[in-house]
Amino acid sequence: MSASMCLYRLRFLKSLERFGRVQALQTQRKFASTLTAIKDETETANTEAKQCSTFQSMQEERRERAERSVLISCPPKFNESKFLKLLSTHGTVKKYFFYHNSTTNAVVEFSSRNSIASLMESTRLPSGSSIPFKSRLMSLKWPDTQSPLRKVKLQDLTPPTPLDTIKKLSKKNSIDEQLQCLMDIYQLTEESISLRYLVCSLLGDLAGVYFPQSVIRPFGSTVNGLGRLGCDLDMILDLNGTYEGSQKRSSPHLEYQVKMALSERAMVQTILSVIARCLEKFGPGFGGVESIPHARCPIVRFSHETSGLSCDLTLNTFGMKSSELLFLYGQLDPRVRPLLFAVRFWAQNHGITKVVPGAWITNFSLTLMVLFFLQRRTPAILPTLNQLKDLAGPLDKCVIMNNDCTFVSDLSKISMNNNTETLETLLLEFFEFYATFDFKNLSIDIREEKPQFKPEANLFIRNPFEEDLNVSKNVNEKQLSNFVTLCQKCAWISQTQNVLKPLSGSVKEFNSPWGFVALLPEHMYTPVFATLKRKKPSVNITDLFKTLKLTKKTDANEGESVVADQA
Amino acid sequence: MSASMCLYRLRFLKSLERFGRVQALQTQRKFASTLTAIKDETETANTEAKQCSTFQSMQEERRERAERSVLISCPPKFNESKFLKLLSTHGTVKKYFFYHNSTTNAVVEFSSRNSIASLMESTRLPSGSSIPFKSRLMSLKWPDTQSPLRKVKLQDLTPPTPLDTIKKLSKKNSIDEQLQCLMDIYQLTEESISLRYLVCSLLGDLAGVYFPQSVIRPFGSTVNGLGRLGCDLDMILDLNGTYEGSQKRSSPHLEYQVKMALSERAMVQTILSVIARCLEKFGPGFGGVESIPHARCPIVRFSHETSGLSCDLTLNTFGMKSSELLFLYGQLDPRVRPLLFAVRFWAQNHGITKVVPGAWITNFSLTLMVLFFLQRRTPAILPTLNQLKDLAGPLDKCVIMNNDCTFVSDLSKISMNNNTETLETLLLEFFEFYATFDFKNLSIDIREEKPQFKPEANLFIRNPFEEDLNVSKNVNEKQLSNFVTLCQKCAWISQTQNVLKPLSGSVKEFNSPWGFVALLPEHMYTPVFATLKRKKPSVNITDLFKTLKLTKKTDANEGESVVADQA
Repeated sequence: MSASMCLYRLRFLKSLERFGRVQALQTQRKFASTLTAIKDETETANTEAKQCSTFQSMQEERRERAERSVLISCPPKFNESKFLKLLSTHGTVKKYFFYHNSTTNAVVEFSSRNSIASLMESTRLPSGSSIPFKSRLMSLKWPDTQSPLRKVKLQDLTPPTPLDTIKKLSKKNSIDEQLQCLMDIYQLTEESISLRYLVCSLLGDLAGVYFPQSVIRPFGSTVNGLGRLGCDLDMILDLNGTYEGSQKRSSPHLEYQVKMALSERAMVQTILSVIARCLEKFGPGFGGVESIPHARCPIVRFSHETSGLSCDLTLNTFGMKSSELLFLYGQLDPRVRPLLFAVRFWAQNHGITKVVPGAWITNFSLTLMVLFFLQRRTPAILPTLNQLKDLAGPLDKCVIMNNDCTFVSDLSKISMNNNTETLETLLLEFFEFYATFDFKNLSIDIREEKPQFKPEANLFIRNPFEEDLNVSKNVNEKQLSNFVTLCQKCAWISQTQNVLKPLSGSVKEFNSPWGFVALLPEHMYTPVFATLKRKKPSVNITDLFKTLKLTKKTDANEGESVVADQA
Repeated sequence: MSASMCLYRLRFLKSLERFGRVQALQTQRKFASTLTAIKDETETANTEAKQCSTFQSMQEERRERAERSVLISCPPKFNESKFLKLLSTHGTVKKYFFYHNSTTNAVVEFSSRNSIASLMESTRLPSGSSIPFKSRLMSLKWPDTQSPLRKVKLQDLTPPTPLDTIKKLSKKNSIDEQLQCLMDIYQLTEESISLRYLVCSLLGDLAGVYFPQSVIRPFGSTVNGLGRLGCDLDMILDLNGTYEGSQKRSSPHLEYQVKMALSERAMVQTILSVIARCLEKFGPGFGGVESIPHARCPIVRFSHETSGLSCDLTLNTFGMKSSELLFLYGQLDPRVRPLLFAVRFWAQNHGITKVVPGAWITNFSLTLMVLFFLQRRTPAILPTLNQLKDLAGPLDKCVIMNNDCTFVSDLSKISMNNNTETLETLLLEFFEFYATFDFKNLSIDIREEKPQFKPEANLFIRNPFEEDLNVSKNVNEKQLSNFVTLCQKCAWISQTQNVLKPLSGSVKEFNSPWGFVALLPEHMYTPVFATLKRKKPSVNITDLFKTLKLTKKTDANEGESVVADQA
């Protein structure tokens, strides 16, 4: 890993430097990034923050803010302004918010890290026998003699209920509006992202303590622009150039004495096992620690009680590159993220994807399927990974464990597409695309422009960075069949039923399910709509779809053979 | 523990301040301390170092020096001056020495801690999969192309062999000279103490990492002035005021969220178990880690490979106070330490004390017996602990777990005794004292001036600080009987055999065992002396001794009844 980590590191260290360059080049396009949208009106540096547009510089900025923040559990009754006054004795509070999880909690960001030192200096350990590990997780103690004032405003960091979602979507005027709305109500808020970075930072104080240059970084949903409120927090322990420069030297020199591991994997397992023990025994707010050393990618799983987040910690660095890639794709066209939110929501509610591991299609696989689909529109909405690689500059070079993970990080280098399809079209075409895809012969590979034949029997979705890996190796024939059948059903519904447009009139939204809602499983919208008027297919969906297809001229890029594997 | 630790802490923090005061007061007496004797001729600050005479300020000075030091394993061939030149690029090397343990190793003390940072910056991790914990334990890499020069001078940190010891002692002219020589060749050298503090400091970087204010301190033999070359290294994790100031407050305030333990003991067990895991998995140079959580005082046992030291780590703070007390007693009269070295050496070789735990008398018990004996000379050579307590100033106040551990730390407050007995007299009187001691009714209690009756059947040696504890509770009747019989035998030999003085003439030393050597077990001196001329007792020693006693007027402070328990 040494050399590869070095390269990865080099990129990272240069990120702030590159930031300047990116700003200069970025004249064509400005993306309103989920990760950088700062809603706080008191924030004056908004525009500056929005411009910090490379994935890594954004991460770095969030990480730095988290290091200036503390997490404080508050009692049922306290006075917000007095609380702030107490905090302000240690320095300027830049921003803060409250959320509820068992108790009211406050995330407080100071302007300076010195304030944290001052605050910690004045903070005391509780009485009784405790493990005196002092972290930035604290409790506010409010004596009864101090009268409380009004209730504080709470940020909701939990996802809306399915019922609320259906109601909201039904009030919209088009499928495009529905998909946009779905993303708006589910995507991570500024506050939820701040809290996630803070949990990483708190974990870093504990887990990274032996490796001073190390950093805990969120990856996956938290940073790829596709995270939903309440989703797990995936974290990476980035050893951060610890191995840098271990080249051969011909002159007398010193080398650290260290414990050796039998392999890279054994090293990762060892580090994670010690971290697991430390978290379990010392870590304030961390609980339910479970070490899973024998997984393909060894992880430590635990919950962070104060934030209510389920967390996974790993040392694998591919995760970070995958996150960056998804983030980049999400930024390239404003239709990508709403479509991804919709397909992922749809698949989850139909049981195509599940929270527990098994033979199902994963969110990552499904995301690659959507990206692959968007690469195959005419004109293409997204470039292939090979095209992104061709655009990469020297600083984008990245090799992890002998796999070339290089792709461009500068958005301004990527020219815009001139595809004008609506979200509605894309959603319905997505179903048709996979209803008719030649899963038997072709792989789904976001790197290549040309169709790729697949090397094995299973559904084959090539890992973007580890070429030999099939990310959907786990998916069995039954699960693939379920997915294809559902795509067929949705394509059939949208083509034959009158459900794509809302009824006119002021009470339209409560008449019957329509648009995206009509493509969700019945149990979700039944409580909302008293009577269901939509005609349900009574015969075999596959047969119906086949009949339909014969009457429709399809733009069959991927060939004609469909669903041959299915019963 | 909170309050007690605070008090202990307070004293510690004031130690440097008190140092000045002690210097001013200390006009009567200057002790050549083992702990501060700096043999390096290049050292200009010798006198200053020797004056740093409180136990705690000496510890602090050594700890600070250890933090400016590194431990470097050297290859079989390298060039000393080039090596020093390499080190000097990072700052001034204040002192250094080499010793052998598997390989040649160097302890290097820099003048400034900045040099350590610079050195570590230039040091690289080895290639291959390793746990990248960077410590001050390094390897010197010396390419073959660089020609080596002369061999380096090695400090011997291992004890002399018994044979060498016997030879050396036999060449002396009196028992007093023998006892002084025994101490001189066995006591810890300046270098061995430096290495021990360095190992503590290296452990501190690893074990104390979660508790920033904590310090690993050596206690026991390493610091009490009674350590022998090669003895175990006992260490304490001093949480160092982490709990300070956790008093009730009536205004709104913040409190750390921490993991709670069911008890003080559970807290200690948890902390030690995590440290054990970290040492085992991450700790460079640490091996053979064994956690012993269920001992009365939970410990972690391990070896430090580069120094060859066997180590015990605990959180118990009584150990430190006991060490300070023994150190103080050792400083009060120049006869104390040689006598203690002799009695401990004698007991160990006769199998009275053993390295493994069991029903034997421990070194600590034996030491208390010697101190107790010296308190009972006329005039007394050592004050009782209660007398030392009466002399204590306000800063000496110390309460640990509700036990008053207060005693004076300022040597100048203690008036000198006017006892003029020789070491020879004291050694022989020691045997007679315990050959005739009323073990059946009396306890050995260094606190009180008057004889104390004992509360239980076993040999009762009261713990100086935990009043209810008998430090010799483990000793069974057989072991006590062995000890008493041996004391009787030695008293008998010295009174009846012509072995106290060496024969005259130039070859005297090789004629027969004499003096202290003659009191050691035969197998030790047999290889040295070709023919043994000394008459051995052929009848029961106890009977012989009783006969002898009847003819001798003893100064029977402790009463007349002897050895009644024995068969």
